Amino acid sequence: MAGNSFGNIFKLTTFGESHGEAIGGIIDGCPAGLSLNFEAIQTEMQRRKPGQSAIVTQRKEEDEVKFLSGIFEGKTTGTSIGFIIENTNQKSQDYSHIKDIYRPSHADFTYDKKYGIRDYRGGGRSSARETACRVAAGAIAKQLIPEIKINVFVSSVGEIFIDKPYQELNFSKTESNNVRCPDADTALKMENLIKKIRKDGDTVGGTITCVIQNVPIGLGEPVFDKLHADLGKAMLSINAVKGFEYGSGFCGAKMKGSEHNDIFNQDGTTKSNLSGGIQGGISNGMDIYFRVAFKPVATIMQKQETIDSKGNKAVAEGKGRHDPCVVPRAVPIVEAMAALVIADFWLLNKVSKI
Amino acid sequence: MAGNSFGNIFKLTTFGESHGEAIGGIIDGCPAGLSLNFEAIQTEMQRRKPGQSAIVTQRKEEDEVKFLSGIFEGKTTGTSIGFIIENTNQKSQDYSHIKDIYRPSHADFTYDKKYGIRDYRGGGRSSARETACRVAAGAIAKQLIPEIKINVFVSSVGEIFIDKPYQELNFSKTESNNVRCPDADTALKMENLIKKIRKDGDTVGGTITCVIQNVPIGLGEPVFDKLHADLGKAMLSINAVKGFEYGSGFCGAKMKGSEHNDIFNQDGTTKSNLSGGIQGGISNGMDIYFRVAFKPVATIMQKQETIDSKGNKAVAEGKGRHDPCVVPRAVPIVEAMAALVIADFWLLNKVSKI
Amino acid sequence: MAGNSFGNIFKLTTFGESHGEAIGGIIDGCPAGLSLNFEAIQTEMQRRKPGQSAIVTQRKEEDEVKFLSGIFEGKTTGTSIGFIIENTNQKSQDYSHIKDIYRPSHADFTYDKKYGIRDYRGGGRSSARETACRVAAGAIAKQLIPEIKINVFVSSVGEIFIDKPYQELNFSKTESNNVRCPDADTALKMENLIKKIRKDGDTVGGTITCVIQNVPIGLGEPVFDKLHADLGKAMLSINAVKGFEYGSGFCGAKMKGSEHNDIFNQDGTTKSNLSGGIQGGISNGMDIYFRVAFKPVATIMQKQETIDSKGNKAVAEGKGRHDPCVVPRAVPIVEAMAALVIADFWLLNKVSKI
Amino acid sequence: MAGNSFGNIFKLTTFGESHGEAIGGIIDGCPAGLSLNFEAIQTEMQRRKPGQSAIVTQRKEEDEVKFLSGIFEGKTTGTSIGFIIENTNQKSQDYSHIKDIYRPSHADFTYDKKYGIRDYRGGGRSSARETACRVAAGAIAKQLIPEIKINVFVSSVGEIFIDKPYQELNFSKTESNNVRCPDADTALKMENLIKKIRKDGDTVGGTITCVIQNVPIGLGEPVFDKLHADLGKAMLSINAVKGFEYGSGFCGAKMKGSEHNDIFNQDGTTKSNLSGGIQGGISNGMDIYFRVAFKPVATIMQKQETIDSKGNKAVAEGKGRHDPCVVPRAVPIVEAMAALVIADFWLLNKVSKI
Repeated sequence: MAGNSFGNIFKLTTFGESHGEAIGGIIDGCPAGLSLNFEAIQTEMQRRKPGQSAIVTQRKEEDEVKFLSGIFEGKTTGTSIGFIIENTNQKSQDYSHIKDIYRPSHADFTYDKKYGIRDYRGGGRSSARETACRVAAGAIAKQLIPEIKINVFVSSVGEIFIDKPYQELNFSKTESNNVRCPDADTALKMENLIKKIRKDGDTVGGTITCVIQNVPIGLGEPVFDKLHADLGKAMLSINAVKGFEYGSGFCGAKMKGSEHNDIFNQDGTTKSNLSGGIQGGISNGMDIYFRVAFKPVATIMQKQETIDSKGNKAVAEGKGRHDPCVVPRAVPIVEAMAALVIADFWLLNKVSKI
Repeated sequence: MAGNSFGNIFKLTTFGESHGEAIGGIIDGCPAGLSLNFEAIQTEMQRRKPGQSAIVTQRKEEDEVKFLSGIFEGKTTGTSIGFIIENTNQKSQDYSHIKDIYRPSHADFTYDKKYGIRDYRGGGRSSARETACRVAAGAIAKQLIPEIKINVFVSSVGEIFIDKPYQELNFSKTESNNVRCPDADTALKMENLIKKIRKDGDTVGGTITCVIQNVPIGLGEPVFDKLHADLGKAMLSINAVKGFEYGSGFCGAKMKGSEHNDIFNQDGTTKSNLSGGIQGGISNGMDIYFRVAFKPVATIMQKQETIDSKGNKAVAEGKGRHDPCVVPRAVPIVEAMAALVIADFWLLNKVSKI
Repeated sequence: MAGNSFGNIFKLTTFGESHGEAIGGIIDGCPAGLSLNFEAIQTEMQRRKPGQSAIVTQRKEEDEVKFLSGIFEGKTTGTSIGFIIENTNQKSQDYSHIKDIYRPSHADFTYDKKYGIRDYRGGGRSSARETACRVAAGAIAKQLIPEIKINVFVSSVGEIFIDKPYQELNFSKTESNNVRCPDADTALKMENLIKKIRKDGDTVGGTITCVIQNVPIGLGEPVFDKLHADLGKAMLSINAVKGFEYGSGFCGAKMKGSEHNDIFNQDGTTKSNLSGGIQGGISNGMDIYFRVAFKPVATIMQKQETIDSKGNKAVAEGKGRHDPCVVPRAVPIVEAMAALVIADFWLLNKVSKI
Repeated sequence: MAGNSFGNIFKLTTFGESHGEAIGGIIDGCPAGLSLNFEAIQTEMQRRKPGQSAIVTQRKEEDEVKFLSGIFEGKTTGTSIGFIIENTNQKSQDYSHIKDIYRPSHADFTYDKKYGIRDYRGGGRSSARETACRVAAGAIAKQLIPEIKINVFVSSVGEIFIDKPYQELNFSKTESNNVRCPDADTALKMENLIKKIRKDGDTVGGTITCVIQNVPIGLGEPVFDKLHADLGKAMLSINAVKGFEYGSGFCGAKMKGSEHNDIFNQDGTTKSNLSGGIQGGISNGMDIYFRVAFKPVATIMQKQETIDSKGNKAVAEGKGRHDPCVVPRAVPIVEAMAALVIADFWLLNKVSKI
């Protein structure tokens, strides 16, 4: 109800602010008997954590996931999996300057109005630190559906876009550069833009593309819980996301039916895939692909006019270590959320027919 | 779980195929004591129903909502509101030609694979007829939050876009033309395009914009149930939707933080509103606005190569009365889904603080 | 949230007052491909309906279930199953005498206070007529798990108890008498008591016992959703129920561990079964059995002092056709609720391990 | 779905086995602005913890609740409250003797069959240690509804019962003896019985009574989520519980309507209260009272014949420090679960009418 849970059968519930002792979560509904690869989980955590490259925030967070339950001798037991990630790098003193100030385009104002109280340290619950729990849970979800391949990469930074269809990209190159763009030339341009933006004390938005391959036919529920509806919600629940489109997306809205329909091959695959692997809310076995828009990070290293909680004029100025562009670090988060959705529908589909 | 329910407190559960005796739903969680305006509900039904203008399908469906419970002497009683809408115009015989055929970009193939059985008459549960129940429930949701104004209109058809910001539009003009576009000149161009498309036996996509005004500050839940995440899911659950963006949307992904941040006025409003009325997942009192992309209707009046359920080649050809462009009739559906989300979060927010 | 839904995967949502046009419900999550025996469903409805014997209310309700969706050519399609049961025998005029009166031990007072409005006709939503929807849904649930046998019978009426363990009863005799007690001698005594009570214009309570046989090992979830916890909730949600005990029940609270523990046979069955077929909240394959206490019906054919909605003294007197003892007609309701719980956990258990 | 969550708005999700590093939980939906009394929370933990008196297990568990989120400067912030309780006293080596053995009337057998894997150390997830999380969450729930008084006490141990109606008891005496029975004479008899039982290496069952006073009228939802149905489920979800009855309970099933009906006073209170403070599933403002049956603890200090996981004969013998009678320590658990239910319905009732 209060929005800290995600999923139906494979369900993640999270807690934690950036400046408490720890953040964490509970995964309920993970089937028993899954042998976990803990190294793979930790690798995902490393991919998300700050300070991993020159173009992301230099904050140091260890982000080690400590599992407290639901696992015995390396296997899931079917009971709830509790985990915590300690906030080893909490520096509450850094935030006294924003205690009473509403930073533009942050959640300070809305939290204060909604709750009448706000943990102002580091953004509190609205901090993107919260997403570390999603990555931990998503890493387990991925291990539940190893045959399904979730490929996520940065497809644009500011005005710089990959100008190829995803079919021409080599996803194995995604992690070979700091931007997480599988096209080396574009990656370089993106990286240069991000460096320039950072030098200016500014930030820039971007988009992330996700391509999910080898999805079984039949995932997703008709009507309200269409597969793309839940994928969309999953993505829109990530901090800074402003838009979601799948398959032909907004371009599809300009097209004619005679152009847009995906004609079947005799084996049930389709010649084109403007449907994005989902028809009637249910996966059809073709690649699922979608695009997610991230706004520029609101914290900039420039002075901005603002107000305080009493309505007085004030000045906000970013301090410390922030991301000039969030999309490189958001890649594993998108991946985790996609994995949570797919794993959940994969389980749910086991009871769709007798 | 199986996806036929929507909402947390104000919850709609629906049933029905296009060719059963009736479709219907249950609204659970509508507070007691709400005086219902039944005429207003029926007006919404008329706005959605087929056959209302020259540019939509000429199928005749009366779409009268019959309430069966939860209302006494014109007021809600707090108990569940059951309703049905009879399928007065069901013509099962029309559909024998598609019984074993998988129509391109329809849900025939995926339903068959997921369930092993399919009600092929008129698309069964995947028919957009299902959305009539959403409109009925949304009409009640709107009456629960009368102070909040939900404005929905067609913002593009094919390549024809309204070329003005929404602030320059007169929403009261939306219903004055068949397209439901508040800009008269653009509406005319859109209508002409749709007529041409229909003559070609083709269909065309479009976008719908929603502007929600006078929203109280504080609606939405942090983390997974962000206000825009649930609005996004609501929209993506509507048939034919391919994308959702709010506030700056995909354009925001090209911007810099120094351009994108919304600077506060001293009264807590913001000078710009690229945030789209939502910050940190919570409404900030500014206009909420978002855009929804609809693909062209898959049923076209042209022969298309396809396959049957045994993998044999076959030919699909639309027959009967279909929409050449779905967006005019989708306007009340978008409105209904927006109302369901806002009403639900409005109720939920009543328990956010002591 | 507002309590009109039951179940996790196999989920029933209901609506309806005794005096609207119809009551009904939606079953969501019934797997596709189940061939339904409609006659068997209607048989269950007949077992619950009033007027079936000399010792129950002589109200006439046809209680024919009309399925509106989710079934095609006799099989479930995996989509939501909507159904209605018309209120053919509604006589609103009968109830004007209780419009402003709070009948003792009815829900009149609490509904009025909770909602500020009340459909006083026939008890409105609090009428036991609501349970007809449970019986309809339970009849489908039973068909989903045909190998599991749910035996339900009246085990006491007033002070008259069956004085044998259930193992000595012949369940096939349950339906051979009006009381639904499988022990003929006891049934006769019960029937005579009920007739005497009715002649006095009074009512009497009773208990129902349920024995579920051939349950697979593994149903139920640890911690909050223990199998017996959900069975208990299911039973306690039935009108007039005051208590629930399973296995050794309240007697178990007087025992010593050395007496109470169920010793294993080598095949995993147990020599005794004081656990009632459930250990740690999970079925162990032994018979599940429990007992449900029903209070005497509140409506009696005698004058009772009471108050009206303004706090004035008033007199309540039952009119019309009421049950002198509710347990015979409650047998199929208990059976239905048990079936809903077991079917739901049976489905849920399919995803308990990889 | 997998049963580790409880509640609708005020929702607790828990994790943890007795022998992991910690157990813990997340409370979602606690309104913002609640000033927490941490000492009072810890007091509840002390009441539940082992080793507190001569008649309970002498295991030492510190059971200090460490809150990790959702609280700022002593007040709830409206975000999820994460907490852990470290397992300071875990002694895995103690349990090697039961690794492959199915202890009679424990959950060893059912867990193994359901999940194919089992954390055998100390009972794993089926350990009553899990209830510590309920007590922590319940202590917060109680602080949310301070005007409501939840009185819980031991009403029987074995064959020894309090022979007075609760109205004649002085609840303030409950904590004055080790048994938590407010009647001093009965308490002494109970304590002597428990000591004798322990000396015999045996265990004994008992009952707990709960009396909730000053409950607002209107809590509870009609149909499935009746107030007593959720209280019943809450109680039945506690380890070792075999039965639940409220108001007249099983005795009510022997009564006549003319005896059982609660006649109103003019102020809306009732002369008798056989309804137990709940009518039609909704609180009527009178005392809510119910009784919970606990079986004798399954672990006894005697040799018992049993089997191992391969079906070989084996011998189980309790070792270590176990409770001879669970009811004294279950008092705060019953209290916590009652508080969770009441607080949840109290919040839910805020949206029952406009």
